[in-house]
Amino acid sequence: MELNDINPNVLSVKPSSMREFDHEISDDPQIVKLTLGEPNFNVPEHIKQAAMDAIKDNHSHYPYFWGYPELREAAAKYYQDKFGYHYGADQIVVTVGATEGVADVIETLFKPGEAVILPSPAYPLYDASISLHGLEQVRVDTSKTDYILTPEAVQKAIDDNPGLKVRGLILTDPNNPTGVAYTEDQLKALVPVLKENHIWVISDEIYGELTYGQKHYTLSKWLPDQTVIVNGLSKSHAMTGWRLGFVFGPSGFIDEIAKVHQFTVTTPTSIIQYAGIEAMKHGQNDAEPMRQAYEKRRDFVAKEMTEAGFDVVHPGGAFYVFAKIPASLNMDSWTFAKTLAKEYHIGLFAGAAFGDDECIRISYAASDEALTAAMKAIKQMVADKSVVSDK
Amino acid sequence: MELNDINPNVLSVKPSSMREFDHEISDDPQIVKLTLGEPNFNVPEHIKQAAMDAIKDNHSHYPYFWGYPELREAAAKYYQDKFGYHYGADQIVVTVGATEGVADVIETLFKPGEAVILPSPAYPLYDASISLHGLEQVRVDTSKTDYILTPEAVQKAIDDNPGLKVRGLILTDPNNPTGVAYTEDQLKALVPVLKENHIWVISDEIYGELTYGQKHYTLSKWLPDQTVIVNGLSKSHAMTGWRLGFVFGPSGFIDEIAKVHQFTVTTPTSIIQYAGIEAMKHGQNDAEPMRQAYEKRRDFVAKEMTEAGFDVVHPGGAFYVFAKIPASLNMDSWTFAKTLAKEYHIGLFAGAAFGDDECIRISYAASDEALTAAMKAIKQMVADKSVVSDK
Repeated sequence: MELNDINPNVLSVKPSSMREFDHEISDDPQIVKLTLGEPNFNVPEHIKQAAMDAIKDNHSHYPYFWGYPELREAAAKYYQDKFGYHYGADQIVVTVGATEGVADVIETLFKPGEAVILPSPAYPLYDASISLHGLEQVRVDTSKTDYILTPEAVQKAIDDNPGLKVRGLILTDPNNPTGVAYTEDQLKALVPVLKENHIWVISDEIYGELTYGQKHYTLSKWLPDQTVIVNGLSKSHAMTGWRLGFVFGPSGFIDEIAKVHQFTVTTPTSIIQYAGIEAMKHGQNDAEPMRQAYEKRRDFVAKEMTEAGFDVVHPGGAFYVFAKIPASLNMDSWTFAKTLAKEYHIGLFAGAAFGDDECIRISYAASDEALTAAMKAIKQMVADKSVVSDK
Repeated sequence: MELNDINPNVLSVKPSSMREFDHEISDDPQIVKLTLGEPNFNVPEHIKQAAMDAIKDNHSHYPYFWGYPELREAAAKYYQDKFGYHYGADQIVVTVGATEGVADVIETLFKPGEAVILPSPAYPLYDASISLHGLEQVRVDTSKTDYILTPEAVQKAIDDNPGLKVRGLILTDPNNPTGVAYTEDQLKALVPVLKENHIWVISDEIYGELTYGQKHYTLSKWLPDQTVIVNGLSKSHAMTGWRLGFVFGPSGFIDEIAKVHQFTVTTPTSIIQYAGIEAMKHGQNDAEPMRQAYEKRRDFVAKEMTEAGFDVVHPGGAFYVFAKIPASLNMDSWTFAKTLAKEYHIGLFAGAAFGDDECIRISYAASDEALTAAMKAIKQMVADKSVVSDK
């Protein structure tokens, strides 16, 4: 049967160019990958043990669809202690990673045709999820304001689009792909314009435990009734493939998203939820050794990339360096990424995947050896491929 | 912020009355539950071991979003051998249980406003998923045709609704809640009307390995270009809470649903996918001892319920008995279920949850002791509560 009559929102969305590129280059046995946001650490042993115990103890039956009460209680306390979240267990739904959180929040809050502000560059998942749900997006270029969204930019996005009903904003803090982490003042500055315009904020705080020399703040502190937080254990506990996330939000909203969640996945894997209980109760310090290692790698990569001629935004969090390709290379971002992969066996992502074709994104959640090899290769490529300037 | 401006499709959907009722009655320490479709068996040991090995081996990173190639290869072969499925590994997407499969298929195939035929009684997930996606449903009562959907009923559903664009049908075979399993002839009879009217079929075959005295057939054999199969390991390998499912479909369709899947959950849990590889490669006979036990329980429950005065449809598959409440009780189905739970400490589901208020559903995926206690209590309740007939 013809497929041209299926959901046009689905037809219009492209598969993630990032995942496809990552999958493609994985065929190269020599490839060193700095592509996916994939910690090179393993899940902490005590959490692995809890998951194995749950398997042995036959916890294979349906958890209550909101997530085990014990997990939600533990998560409420964990995030209150970490970041000052103010949510009770009944304001939390346990999701299949942060991805399901983002998808469910978008489905719950918005109606087809409404618009969502997306500070750019942005993680491509948001773009796709907005399109899949039949929404419009208003991209706001943050590159001229050090990749920080300003209240003026929010107001301008609304004023410049009088034909659109702008009802949402997706804020990723710490940011993927730029690594920028918002200060307390930068977040507080956004509050009045968001209140005044009744904008729901999806606050993706998945990198909240990975900040360097600065603290993580949550916008929900100043905008509790309009903020929905997406978080999870993928980055803080190196549990990407295990898929465990949380949505935190106002009570009435949580009742609504719980239905979307239930009818989308029923619940995340029971034994991973047991692992999550262990992480929330006894894994408060699990992220710290990783954070320290990431910080060293960040310093190394930022320094090396600057030396190689790239403009690097200061990354205060997450584990990415977002770097502007030297003009001497005269290359767009996919050409850079593909050339580097093909000829130098180093994988990283084109900025175009995030909406900025002048930059590339390096994930430094990789081994020191991989990073050293990558920096050497990138310097070599700059030397090999730079064209002589006419000036 | 007010919630009246959020997605009206979400506001209109009720949380599953089944899950809420099950959760409520779980507070009663004496309760014996025949509610959820939840095997009382444990995950087979060799599969548990594979999951534990995957944890030990640190398989905690992102699987490719379609699912591990090895799992899709193994699933292709497993289901070909079992039921004659004709799908290659590149026509399979691995999902978070059958629930995500159903949600993703509905999102991929249909546009808001289009209509889907739902043979009734039906598992409430479909109803909710149809509403969440802004679709209309055409309920077709199957109670007068032994709970089998006939081609005449499909044609009538289309003819009676000239204002609706009917583009889909959800077929659950073996059926939940009735336990009815379609014969080869009953499925083949549906093919012409579905072809002629270009109806996509979502064929939920999650209970395919649980049939009694008859074989499971798949509609996809005769309608390959219009059928999408949803299946998984929840029932065949007692892995409900582990959440592993599959969608099988025509190639072009699978490319589209893969995007919806990716942007909804990224991928199911990596270690559960490793467990799935073991189940698909070495667990071909895992369901058989369970099936034999279920068959004995089915015989017992059907006999006892008939003796108690209930009309019982012959259940050829799944693990449910759907039984009509004796007229002498003069009770609707929720009154029956709530009275039985409160006064007799036995939990089962009201038929109303499935669209039939004259019946109740018993899950016999429970221990022999639980079933014996339940049958005794139900007989007692009939004796206690029957009203004297006026006749």
